[in-house]
Amino acid sequence: MLQEAAFELFLENSYAGTTVDQIAQRAGVSRNTFFNYFPSKSDVFWVDLDESLGLLMESLRASSTDTPVMSAIRDALLAVASDFGPNRVPWALTQYSMIGSVHELQASAMSRLSAQAHVLGSFVADRLPAGARGLGRAASFAAFGAAVAAAQDWANAGTTRGEFGPYLDAAVTPVCRGFQGAIDAL
Amino acid sequence: MLQEAAFELFLENSYAGTTVDQIAQRAGVSRNTFFNYFPSKSDVFWVDLDESLGLLMESLRASSTDTPVMSAIRDALLAVASDFGPNRVPWALTQYSMIGSVHELQASAMSRLSAQAHVLGSFVADRLPAGARGLGRAASFAAFGAAVAAAQDWANAGTTRGEFGPYLDAAVTPVCRGFQGAIDAL
Repeated sequence: MLQEAAFELFLENSYAGTTVDQIAQRAGVSRNTFFNYFPSKSDVFWVDLDESLGLLMESLRASSTDTPVMSAIRDALLAVASDFGPNRVPWALTQYSMIGSVHELQASAMSRLSAQAHVLGSFVADRLPAGARGLGRAASFAAFGAAVAAAQDWANAGTTRGEFGPYLDAAVTPVCRGFQGAIDAL
Repeated sequence: MLQEAAFELFLENSYAGTTVDQIAQRAGVSRNTFFNYFPSKSDVFWVDLDESLGLLMESLRASSTDTPVMSAIRDALLAVASDFGPNRVPWALTQYSMIGSVHELQASAMSRLSAQAHVLGSFVADRLPAGARGLGRAASFAAFGAAVAAAQDWANAGTTRGEFGPYLDAAVTPVCRGFQGAIDAL
């Protein structure tokens, strides 16, 4: 409800022109209720991204330590992507240019991804010998970079885009292959 | 001069607590002179990054079209990195946590890198057959991601860090190898 109300208002009045009070009012709840669900206005905007990143880390933590770490990352990314069919393009990916504040929203997405790349980097580093930890961090940031490019290409592909999985697979597999090769060669 | 004045003030009064007027005054120039050099306060902060990104694209545009495109990216990144000896760590990388506004500054760095990854992506895509352009964009974003991880590791390594080149090489070579393999397999 809160998310729907927020997205309606962003389209009507722009992102910058929408306040938390307006979102709460449209959804028929109090300002305090809004803040029970979302720490800030940008959190309601990026709820799909944050959910996906949460699922990614859950899936990774559940992965067997016998799986080569780059395969575990690829599997976890593709598992999260399998939620996104042709018609479930996150609203943020297709609509962000319609609601103004493009620069501010891109920056907030990048800062969320960067924070999460650190979390992923620590996870990968912990599965690698001490001398390979820098490689694990680089692999995490590279995989996220490739995933961002894939998400943009997929969103831009229009109604014939199909599912997200193949886009993500094509972008992330070379990263995983390259880094697994470098890790194995250590 | 403007950069030095700005960095002094950021350390004294924090990034958020420093105005363009104060920077101009400390450097002994007018506000207009400041804006002749920098479009905004964050541009004076990221001058090293912006210069490096400019050099990167210059070096890439000068590269031979006979060179495999991922080798051209790797060569160009390493050429830019060769400017950074152990004692030329960009101020922004070591001091940003001292001047407050960490979140805001990270977001502005990420948005600059993201814009530049698009420029790099278009360059790579133009050197690839139509069916491989998505791969070129993914490669560009992945290479930038790996370079960000390498720069952070290098800055964090302290006074025994040595030059930036080897950090960047270790992080970016697996990306380039993975994507060149995928491009060749098309």
